[in-house]
Amino acid sequence: MKALVYHAPFDIRCEDVANPDPLAIDGAVVRITHSGICGSDLHIYEGHGWAGPGFTTGHEAVGEVVEVGSAVRRFKSGDRVMISGAAACATCLPCARGRIDLCDSGEASVFGIGLGLAGSQAEAVGVPGADNTLARIPDGMTDEQALMLTDNLPTGWFGATRADIVPGSTVAVVGLGPVGQHAVESALVLGASRVLALDLVPARLAAAAAVGAEPVAVDDATAARVREMTGGRGVDASIEAVGRDDSIKLAMDVAGRGATISIVGVPQSPVVGVPSMALQGQNQTLRMSLCPVQSTWSTLIPLVLTERLHPERVITTRLALTDGADAYSRFHARQDGVMKVVLRA
Amino acid sequence: MKALVYHAPFDIRCEDVANPDPLAIDGAVVRITHSGICGSDLHIYEGHGWAGPGFTTGHEAVGEVVEVGSAVRRFKSGDRVMISGAAACATCLPCARGRIDLCDSGEASVFGIGLGLAGSQAEAVGVPGADNTLARIPDGMTDEQALMLTDNLPTGWFGATRADIVPGSTVAVVGLGPVGQHAVESALVLGASRVLALDLVPARLAAAAAVGAEPVAVDDATAARVREMTGGRGVDASIEAVGRDDSIKLAMDVAGRGATISIVGVPQSPVVGVPSMALQGQNQTLRMSLCPVQSTWSTLIPLVLTERLHPERVITTRLALTDGADAYSRFHARQDGVMKVVLRA
Amino acid sequence: MKALVYHAPFDIRCEDVANPDPLAIDGAVVRITHSGICGSDLHIYEGHGWAGPGFTTGHEAVGEVVEVGSAVRRFKSGDRVMISGAAACATCLPCARGRIDLCDSGEASVFGIGLGLAGSQAEAVGVPGADNTLARIPDGMTDEQALMLTDNLPTGWFGATRADIVPGSTVAVVGLGPVGQHAVESALVLGASRVLALDLVPARLAAAAAVGAEPVAVDDATAARVREMTGGRGVDASIEAVGRDDSIKLAMDVAGRGATISIVGVPQSPVVGVPSMALQGQNQTLRMSLCPVQSTWSTLIPLVLTERLHPERVITTRLALTDGADAYSRFHARQDGVMKVVLRA
Amino acid sequence: MKALVYHAPFDIRCEDVANPDPLAIDGAVVRITHSGICGSDLHIYEGHGWAGPGFTTGHEAVGEVVEVGSAVRRFKSGDRVMISGAAACATCLPCARGRIDLCDSGEASVFGIGLGLAGSQAEAVGVPGADNTLARIPDGMTDEQALMLTDNLPTGWFGATRADIVPGSTVAVVGLGPVGQHAVESALVLGASRVLALDLVPARLAAAAAVGAEPVAVDDATAARVREMTGGRGVDASIEAVGRDDSIKLAMDVAGRGATISIVGVPQSPVVGVPSMALQGQNQTLRMSLCPVQSTWSTLIPLVLTERLHPERVITTRLALTDGADAYSRFHARQDGVMKVVLRA
Repeated sequence: MKALVYHAPFDIRCEDVANPDPLAIDGAVVRITHSGICGSDLHIYEGHGWAGPGFTTGHEAVGEVVEVGSAVRRFKSGDRVMISGAAACATCLPCARGRIDLCDSGEASVFGIGLGLAGSQAEAVGVPGADNTLARIPDGMTDEQALMLTDNLPTGWFGATRADIVPGSTVAVVGLGPVGQHAVESALVLGASRVLALDLVPARLAAAAAVGAEPVAVDDATAARVREMTGGRGVDASIEAVGRDDSIKLAMDVAGRGATISIVGVPQSPVVGVPSMALQGQNQTLRMSLCPVQSTWSTLIPLVLTERLHPERVITTRLALTDGADAYSRFHARQDGVMKVVLRA
Repeated sequence: MKALVYHAPFDIRCEDVANPDPLAIDGAVVRITHSGICGSDLHIYEGHGWAGPGFTTGHEAVGEVVEVGSAVRRFKSGDRVMISGAAACATCLPCARGRIDLCDSGEASVFGIGLGLAGSQAEAVGVPGADNTLARIPDGMTDEQALMLTDNLPTGWFGATRADIVPGSTVAVVGLGPVGQHAVESALVLGASRVLALDLVPARLAAAAAVGAEPVAVDDATAARVREMTGGRGVDASIEAVGRDDSIKLAMDVAGRGATISIVGVPQSPVVGVPSMALQGQNQTLRMSLCPVQSTWSTLIPLVLTERLHPERVITTRLALTDGADAYSRFHARQDGVMKVVLRA
Repeated sequence: MKALVYHAPFDIRCEDVANPDPLAIDGAVVRITHSGICGSDLHIYEGHGWAGPGFTTGHEAVGEVVEVGSAVRRFKSGDRVMISGAAACATCLPCARGRIDLCDSGEASVFGIGLGLAGSQAEAVGVPGADNTLARIPDGMTDEQALMLTDNLPTGWFGATRADIVPGSTVAVVGLGPVGQHAVESALVLGASRVLALDLVPARLAAAAAVGAEPVAVDDATAARVREMTGGRGVDASIEAVGRDDSIKLAMDVAGRGATISIVGVPQSPVVGVPSMALQGQNQTLRMSLCPVQSTWSTLIPLVLTERLHPERVITTRLALTDGADAYSRFHARQDGVMKVVLRA
Repeated sequence: MKALVYHAPFDIRCEDVANPDPLAIDGAVVRITHSGICGSDLHIYEGHGWAGPGFTTGHEAVGEVVEVGSAVRRFKSGDRVMISGAAACATCLPCARGRIDLCDSGEASVFGIGLGLAGSQAEAVGVPGADNTLARIPDGMTDEQALMLTDNLPTGWFGATRADIVPGSTVAVVGLGPVGQHAVESALVLGASRVLALDLVPARLAAAAAVGAEPVAVDDATAARVREMTGGRGVDASIEAVGRDDSIKLAMDVAGRGATISIVGVPQSPVVGVPSMALQGQNQTLRMSLCPVQSTWSTLIPLVLTERLHPERVITTRLALTDGADAYSRFHARQDGVMKVVLRA
């Protein structure tokens, strides 16, 4: 089958690889119809994967089940499914409730980063623990909506839930890529009265404004401007979706008394410095998160189905899987305002 | 000053009464600009008040502070304020956090029903415990929005919060008068993926549909239809805003496993029969509520200000205070589709 | 193998029956070492089972796994296990998190009541959905402690959690059989400052007092006495563990403003009458519950292991499985103060 | 009257000062019977107060109301009261519910540190916002129990509540001074199944063990030992009550997946370094807290009254106010195992 394969920094190619198998009696094989390129895939593209050349890439995909192991209970061939970006033992109690991040085995694994699981930017992928790692795509949901449920929307949502938003809260979202855009909509579903959306890029600010946020262009005076916009108080919840030192600092600077700062960007620095007087003097909470996708599905699937969330709106670019090399190149260059790339098999 | 005075069943008149005083050193006098007629005022109109002829009516009002007692801290003359429909000791800890329903003195009192507090369908009213019973109307909020914050919106909201709605929930609202309409919007702010809105009256169904609900016309097959619309499961949260035996029964009938039934209508019967097999076999929760208005303000004021809630949309009829007799008559007859009447002083 | 078999009202006998099988590829066979007789078994003993003569009885048991189906992941032969009193599809998402009461299939089933699943008052039992229906007995936990985790302690705990107890709450428990005794201890673990324990039987009052409750002998003046003991306020949380009309009424009568009434007794009447003025005027909550045992294990197993809960203290009587007929007779007669009977295979 | 006055580092003396007044119409004067010396008072003793010589010290005190302003509603002369260690505007909504840390005025102030409010290591003190800053000492509570409710117990409790402890949690408490001791008991009231208590000092370890904790002597291998004691998982909740860099690091090191680290010690460093891979990879939460004492009283007063909490057990040393100079000296030297000093006026 065809799949994207990592060869060297800035060299990912579409080529023939062996067909997958269901991995175990509780696994499945899914024929992929749509896969996504995630911002985190660019780290691999830049050469920061977990393995040398030769592994297949990608962890966002939807498709159709074509084979199931004998112990799979919830799926059968022909089912239309979304695949979580990561899998774990699928057997322990935390996994059973979707919290693969708390897996007793400690072995949650992401597809397509050079560790155990082959990637899903491919014509098919083997899926371990299928009853846990897959969800059925319900009637009325498009493939692109489902694709956004495999990583980006859950990550934005999880970050928003971990920001302790309550009805009436004022929220800031720092960084308006796909995850930040989803965090904006998630904050509104969680009852925020105001969402201040912070970024440098006008198109991203406009996209956030279109779903109800107040856009705030980032410059040296942003923190002061957010204070002014909030009557001097700062925000109740601050969500960071970039990971840069300066954006993490900004997310902290705009947080008010009793606020929660929720970081879903992957921090670029191994140690994040927290100003203790600010955090303690204001009784704040700091969270960093890696989203266990399957834990969010029972909440997010109905919200997407009834169009309270519109995750597909971030998709800017649709290409064929065979154009994968070009797709990575254009996404890395942010060419033509690309925000999210979908590859069709 | 002018005020509406109860004389006899179906006989409420606008006439001259004595001016109010601040009642105590922690009280205030508010000059009323807008008052509302609540569905519960119709019980008084029909002769079911707590006193004989001669008391002034009304418990929904906004206006301007014209006098404050020496111990009032948060308000001064000239402040534009909304007045909670009820007041309590304003001193104990539950009152301090707005939960006047839990007042240690046990003496929460509604304005204008013939008990201690004169009504606010008047040119002015005396307000006890002003720091607790009033809230400032912020810039950008209209008087009519504020008026809806003195009883109807808080009641619908409180009922929705007591229905244990979580993001993604499917919710039913039985009865689409002003309180039910507010419950519909509240359920959406609380994250409902679907709100099924049940009533007999097409205009009310249409009003609920306009803010995002799925209208369901009530007939003998309604419970079955709701089951069908929910894949056989019933709803996660069922809010009743009428109080009739049949609507309470309907609210229970549409509730699914693990659901909460939240009744904010005032039950017409002194004893409500609960089918124990259904409630226990499905691990359900039943709540009945009388809303402590002031406990909801810190949440609802920002949500109204940013137009996540549109309480003013239920207002159908605007009349002068001096037309009060006519206003009661028309509201009681539901003449011309009147849903909510506002009186201007 | 030997098992207790229902023949007729007041006629349950130990006799030879066929050995069980694992039921399905996700099932197991457990050799029983200890089984319990539950208060609800007495309904069957009195002739109110779901089937005619010939079914095996019992739904509380612990033992050792002797056979597992090919799809069982978490257990193997030789594992020491407790068996939940009920099982469901074990596959859907609610089941995965232990909430078999919310099973999508709607088919949770109790062992040994004459429906699909044979009883566990036997030398062995077939267990469906073993990964879901079983839990490993950890080192340091006795068989009798584990036995109490198959029904009675989870039921008391679940009722307490559904009573909305918060640290500092004053709690009443009405009815001090095994479930009520466990509710008393559960309320303390949940942070209650006071637990008023209500019953008619001195030995049961003494047992509750021994773990920290304030005993209140039930008579005509009990509700008034509880009001007096609580400064006129009533309790914050009221747990009912009997199901009789009068005890349900008492649980409601002692509840204060904002209280929750949590009923875990099986109501004797098909319709429970709720005084609407009391429930609504005090913003109360009413819950009835049937406990999904497996949802409580991750919380209760550590609390029993560290002796914050002492469920084994309710066991008064230990007999052989072959003495089952006598055991039922003595338990039904409450002979010699029997509170809980354990049968050893 | 007599009061302790700061003169210079290591020079606090008992001498005559002017009598206090109620400060405002909502203030009161309290005649002090017992005051405490807090660990944070030692910073002042060492010369790190907010003012030069001449201010009175102390922020922990109980006594009797001797004068109230005209706007005080809840207290009168003769009332036996505890005084929160800090006061704020006492008027805004956050203050009304006890959250003076979120005071809209932003001006919460601690007694006796050299800022606005004179200290309470004195024969009397002026108390602003008396209805908010005071609580009545109920019958059955000793003065020493009440004294511990003015700062130390609330701080330990608040830290425990901000550690997200749920029933069954495994908790670590790092640092077993008075606040840490209270955190140990608080964790148990919140339902912890295990509390690992970490300190260097044998007497403190023994004190924690006496109320149910598992003592862990701190050395280079502590983090590894805690991992071993928890099956490799680390703890669910980690409470730090010292503020040193190494103890904060230890609190982080023992935290497991999904854990919360709650720091109530005042950090010695202005910037605390957080290892981002650990915090994000394990979906952890970090909180730092300064306790708003009055927010905890409605919960803690009943728990102390019913002896579920024993805050008085940390008191090791009782002296006269006139021995204040000696008291500070002995406490600073930790002479004779002093853990907590109470001064009697």
